[in-house]
Amino acid sequence: MLELHGHQLIGRGTSGESDDTFQAANPATGDLLPTVFHEASAAEIDRAMTLAAEAFVAFRQTSAEDRARFLEACADEVEALGGQLIETAMAETGHPEPRCVGERGRATGQARMFAQYVREGSWVDARIDLPQPERQPLPKPDVRSLMFPVGPVVVFGASNFPLAISVFGADTVSAFAAGCPVVVKAHPAHPATCELVGRAILAAAEKTGMPEGVFSMVQGRTNAVGVGLVQHPETTAAAFTGSLRGGRALYDAANARPAPIPFYAEMGSVNPIFVLPGALKERGEAISAGYIQSLTLGVGQFCTNPGLVLGLESDELSAFVEGAASGAKGAAPATMLHAGIHHAFVEGVNAMQHRSGLTLVGESGTPADPAKSEAACYVFETDADGLRNNPELFEEVFGPVSTVVKCPSPSDLEEFAAQLDGSLTASIHGTEEDLATYRGLIDILEKKVGRLIFNGFPTGIEVCHAMHHGGPYPATAHSYFTSIGTRCIQRFVRPLCFQGWPQSQLPEELRDDNPRGILRLVDGEYTRDAITG
Amino acid sequence: MLELHGHQLIGRGTSGESDDTFQAANPATGDLLPTVFHEASAAEIDRAMTLAAEAFVAFRQTSAEDRARFLEACADEVEALGGQLIETAMAETGHPEPRCVGERGRATGQARMFAQYVREGSWVDARIDLPQPERQPLPKPDVRSLMFPVGPVVVFGASNFPLAISVFGADTVSAFAAGCPVVVKAHPAHPATCELVGRAILAAAEKTGMPEGVFSMVQGRTNAVGVGLVQHPETTAAAFTGSLRGGRALYDAANARPAPIPFYAEMGSVNPIFVLPGALKERGEAISAGYIQSLTLGVGQFCTNPGLVLGLESDELSAFVEGAASGAKGAAPATMLHAGIHHAFVEGVNAMQHRSGLTLVGESGTPADPAKSEAACYVFETDADGLRNNPELFEEVFGPVSTVVKCPSPSDLEEFAAQLDGSLTASIHGTEEDLATYRGLIDILEKKVGRLIFNGFPTGIEVCHAMHHGGPYPATAHSYFTSIGTRCIQRFVRPLCFQGWPQSQLPEELRDDNPRGILRLVDGEYTRDAITG
Repeated sequence: MLELHGHQLIGRGTSGESDDTFQAANPATGDLLPTVFHEASAAEIDRAMTLAAEAFVAFRQTSAEDRARFLEACADEVEALGGQLIETAMAETGHPEPRCVGERGRATGQARMFAQYVREGSWVDARIDLPQPERQPLPKPDVRSLMFPVGPVVVFGASNFPLAISVFGADTVSAFAAGCPVVVKAHPAHPATCELVGRAILAAAEKTGMPEGVFSMVQGRTNAVGVGLVQHPETTAAAFTGSLRGGRALYDAANARPAPIPFYAEMGSVNPIFVLPGALKERGEAISAGYIQSLTLGVGQFCTNPGLVLGLESDELSAFVEGAASGAKGAAPATMLHAGIHHAFVEGVNAMQHRSGLTLVGESGTPADPAKSEAACYVFETDADGLRNNPELFEEVFGPVSTVVKCPSPSDLEEFAAQLDGSLTASIHGTEEDLATYRGLIDILEKKVGRLIFNGFPTGIEVCHAMHHGGPYPATAHSYFTSIGTRCIQRFVRPLCFQGWPQSQLPEELRDDNPRGILRLVDGEYTRDAITG
Repeated sequence: MLELHGHQLIGRGTSGESDDTFQAANPATGDLLPTVFHEASAAEIDRAMTLAAEAFVAFRQTSAEDRARFLEACADEVEALGGQLIETAMAETGHPEPRCVGERGRATGQARMFAQYVREGSWVDARIDLPQPERQPLPKPDVRSLMFPVGPVVVFGASNFPLAISVFGADTVSAFAAGCPVVVKAHPAHPATCELVGRAILAAAEKTGMPEGVFSMVQGRTNAVGVGLVQHPETTAAAFTGSLRGGRALYDAANARPAPIPFYAEMGSVNPIFVLPGALKERGEAISAGYIQSLTLGVGQFCTNPGLVLGLESDELSAFVEGAASGAKGAAPATMLHAGIHHAFVEGVNAMQHRSGLTLVGESGTPADPAKSEAACYVFETDADGLRNNPELFEEVFGPVSTVVKCPSPSDLEEFAAQLDGSLTASIHGTEEDLATYRGLIDILEKKVGRLIFNGFPTGIEVCHAMHHGGPYPATAHSYFTSIGTRCIQRFVRPLCFQGWPQSQLPEELRDDNPRGILRLVDGEYTRDAITG
């Protein structure tokens, strides 16, 4: 068992200069947890970022194999924390044990996936245009380029995935894979979990010979810590998963710098589900059961939680609503991540109950205990005019609450699809014929979302190469980039081009002999071959 | 000969609602040119953007072959403008005929390169992770993704490349290639050139059956037009090449939107040259001649113009400076793009002449005629303290002026490299031994620039797959993206992911049979093979 100290992890040292301290609470009991954490001072932030900048010199020159081993060692060390990590995460988040164990598996699996991705190596997008010294009127130079790490990266731990999107989430892991040192802002709702994981990463860094400063972590519950990290001159990029309000404030801070940096924010979304007539006829009951399961997964605290369901008025849709109402009734209230989130959820549901045109059709049959920060599940119903009169329904309420909209005609579905803000996902339940019939609706949704799901639900994201977890604003701050899947390494690199550069001084990915056998674009052709003659 | 009308090109129509008009001037004479151009009104901007949004529905569904033919038709139509285009560009920019002809060739070659790039098709980064319905504890879904166009794009024409980085530059061409409609803000210094090229694009769009609104162009010389375009709700991305001041203002306007959009700005840079001892010994004279040639190319108005040369104090460096001074003396003054740029250049040079520690060592032997907006070439010399005391030397002065810094020790070179702002390029003249000896310097430069040139000069950019024309801020607003080379298509796309989607409704690039035979990442392996049972 590691004894917690509540200090910043700065390079290989610890520091707790500030008298400003805080404790996390167990949301299931309201009790304060024992460890006292020190808010990071400006000087501590500066030391962490300065060490990260120093570490970048050596870290970016590590081989892909070195970085792969570092990532695997991190996964091993996180696993070696054993039951202490699981128990700590449970106490700080209200998550049940199987969820914590599963999420740890996702985090370590993700790290090992990135280890393989950098070992294979083609992700650097190596491109070579060979010279033509005799070309007229001007010789063609030798031009080669590849993706190169940007520099120190700041990662904001998310509250809703304390293991898989926090200290050792996809942000940290993909930054390491790229060759970027990381400074994590721990989440104040689960600081002990963060400390444990942070210390595991440091142990892995030491075992695999990584430079001091490759990883640091600061604690804090004030905006000053976040803004201080984002505006530090050595910070070259930042990644964030959280609320629109918090994300936008930090995004604005990043852009207000003398030299702005990219602030990659994933800020949640409403994740609409469209239930089309053919599917409702075939299996309305199964869809309503799946919907409630998705809505209540993780107490409705997934980024991809489905907040809005749209369908065409019909007996089948009425039966679907009845099924959803009954599903909600059977859903047991459960503890949310922390009292603040619980409070916002209760307020959001109360506001909905007072909106005209909106009817509560289903809620958990057993009452939620506010002392345990418990959320009940709520399903509302409205019609097209109800949605038109309540545009707030297009905004996410974080937690297990959702609204079904009964629309009189297909044109309403298109109208509402066009009104959606950018969203991480949209899901369509339909037959293949439905999809063809509603092609106009799909065309609209393609412009609005990052992921389109057919006959499935948005929660429970597969971590893989093709996954995209992003979307037009406000789903994310920059829709080119994802925060899950191997493409997320792209946030922490930029092209670096070498013109006329001698073989001996080129990165090995760009050398003629292609020693790692990666796939390259050579004079416009993709090949793993070496360049000869 | 086309008769110019000076109106906005909005879809297939023209419009000149505003009484606010302007004329461009011939910088070589100061005379106003005959065509009267109408400043775009807010209503005209709105119509152009609305038409672009409407066109997006059809345009993004065109096949790659359709878009390739459209690009090729644009190139044909631009060429068909013949001598009228060349004469118009010469009159508006002061560029000599060979430069205009060469630049037209670069623009049309670039368009044809993009036609081939989209025909080949692998650029969409198609990724497929196949399903595993039996996986425990949860089935693995079918997940597929590819790059998808973002929507209407606003392009700001650059003053310094009226053909290759303006109406029909890499921005427009790569946006079309991606499937995005374009609205161009014509540059007020060459509005007639813009009108001719814009009408050629419209002719190509009509011949190849592209939807109305795929291209529009508005004229304007006020900030209101630029801000109106960037802040229009239908705009999804914008591309800009120009000054830091203008670029930053528009960047801030893009980020101040309720839903921010990416504003891809290339804002110039100082493009340092490091002359290392071995190279100076071997061929100092040739390097100084090449330096002056690069400095005066296009009257010093290239984005990659070398504003700063750094070397170690030595007899060879003194000889290099003498060579450069003599080269400058032989450089004839020439007409700059417009009076405003000329005025800023003269002010910049005057300010340098009054800086202490800075010595003018060479200037054009014949006087520059201000009535012709002519710029002479100027070479200054200073030492390490001179640079320390004049940090303004790290900022670009647009035009043929440059400073050679004689440093006492290699550590000075590293110190100054570390002080550089982000730059498009850095060039190193050295032997292969120099490169190894000065590895520490190169390590620093790798963090500062987008392109490293060995024994060459930064001006004269090769348009190819491996080229990167970008760099850390302020060289560009987002260092991941380039504005030259095939990678520049990435600015106008985002991933779109399909989960569990039926074959019949998938984009063809993601279908099992891979009808176009593109390269795809299937379960982590790159292959052009179809997926079979």
